[in-house]
Amino acid sequence: MPPETPQPPLRRADAERNREKILAVARPAFAAAGGDVSMAEVARRAGVGMATLYRNFPGRRELLEALYTEEVDALCAAAGSVAGESAGERFIAWLNRFAASPVSSRHIARELIENLGGESVFNDSRSRLLSAGGPLLKAAQDSGEIRRDLKLDQVFSMVIALGSIPGAPRYRAPILRAALDGLAARPE
Amino acid sequence: MPPETPQPPLRRADAERNREKILAVARPAFAAAGGDVSMAEVARRAGVGMATLYRNFPGRRELLEALYTEEVDALCAAAGSVAGESAGERFIAWLNRFAASPVSSRHIARELIENLGGESVFNDSRSRLLSAGGPLLKAAQDSGEIRRDLKLDQVFSMVIALGSIPGAPRYRAPILRAALDGLAARPE
Repeated sequence: MPPETPQPPLRRADAERNREKILAVARPAFAAAGGDVSMAEVARRAGVGMATLYRNFPGRRELLEALYTEEVDALCAAAGSVAGESAGERFIAWLNRFAASPVSSRHIARELIENLGGESVFNDSRSRLLSAGGPLLKAAQDSGEIRRDLKLDQVFSMVIALGSIPGAPRYRAPILRAALDGLAARPE
Repeated sequence: MPPETPQPPLRRADAERNREKILAVARPAFAAAGGDVSMAEVARRAGVGMATLYRNFPGRRELLEALYTEEVDALCAAAGSVAGESAGERFIAWLNRFAASPVSSRHIARELIENLGGESVFNDSRSRLLSAGGPLLKAAQDSGEIRRDLKLDQVFSMVIALGSIPGAPRYRAPILRAALDGLAARPE
């Protein structure tokens, strides 16, 4: 049995609730603005004091890293559970999920790496996503659905680059769709 | 007959030669570094004095605009002469030429627009390229080779975004190839 810290269950539940409230308000702000939201604004929206906020996340970097890691966890888990009728469909469905995630945003990567010094979390995340998605790509190549001249790293680079195209979703979506169609194995 | 300026033919030929010498040394520097080269360095490499350089190009903006416009002219001309066995092949060959040109570099676009104030040349160039490439895309769609859910503007956005992927050519080239393959019309 693991040793327990001697903290009353109620207080632990409260602390957990505060942390979840903070993450819940920061999550959409993070996705929309790439972490541009201020700590004071996060505390205000979560309805917690600054002391509580800083006890949970000593700075914007820790908050952004927590959100980023949480989203990477979800993407890695999705690699094992994503729906699709074939290995190729599952791979493409997973890439679409990656494309829709803040994790594939260059803006957020830049914020994390250049402004906040979170390069190690960023690099760890890329490694974890490569590990999680690798079997999906291999299965889709083995089934003959996906071309073999790109590695997953290159596919990520493609999706991330296309994510940086400015414009409305109806302008951007067909571009991503066409590029992902291009991953299909070619005849001959 | 058009009126002639009273300039001796020899001096006009000299001036033309100087201008061409300057453009010739600036062209590769522009393609490689996105116009990051200094005016003094351009004068030195071209073997002309600063006065001659500035008489031809009053500033870096004018020099970069001249190189940019020259390259856009070449791309527009290529739209009418590019080789290929079918309309689809000609369109893709032209896009590959666009992708290889400094004109599709975000770095150079940023330099031109943000640092040098050359937004009008940039926008004019995009319009001219859209006009030149439009018939190529239409022919390739009419022949059933290229999908119809993207406009040329979106195809440009795709190529420009993929051009911003860092890395060696052997890392980048398969990504562009896959995305351009994705422009093929899909069965059903």
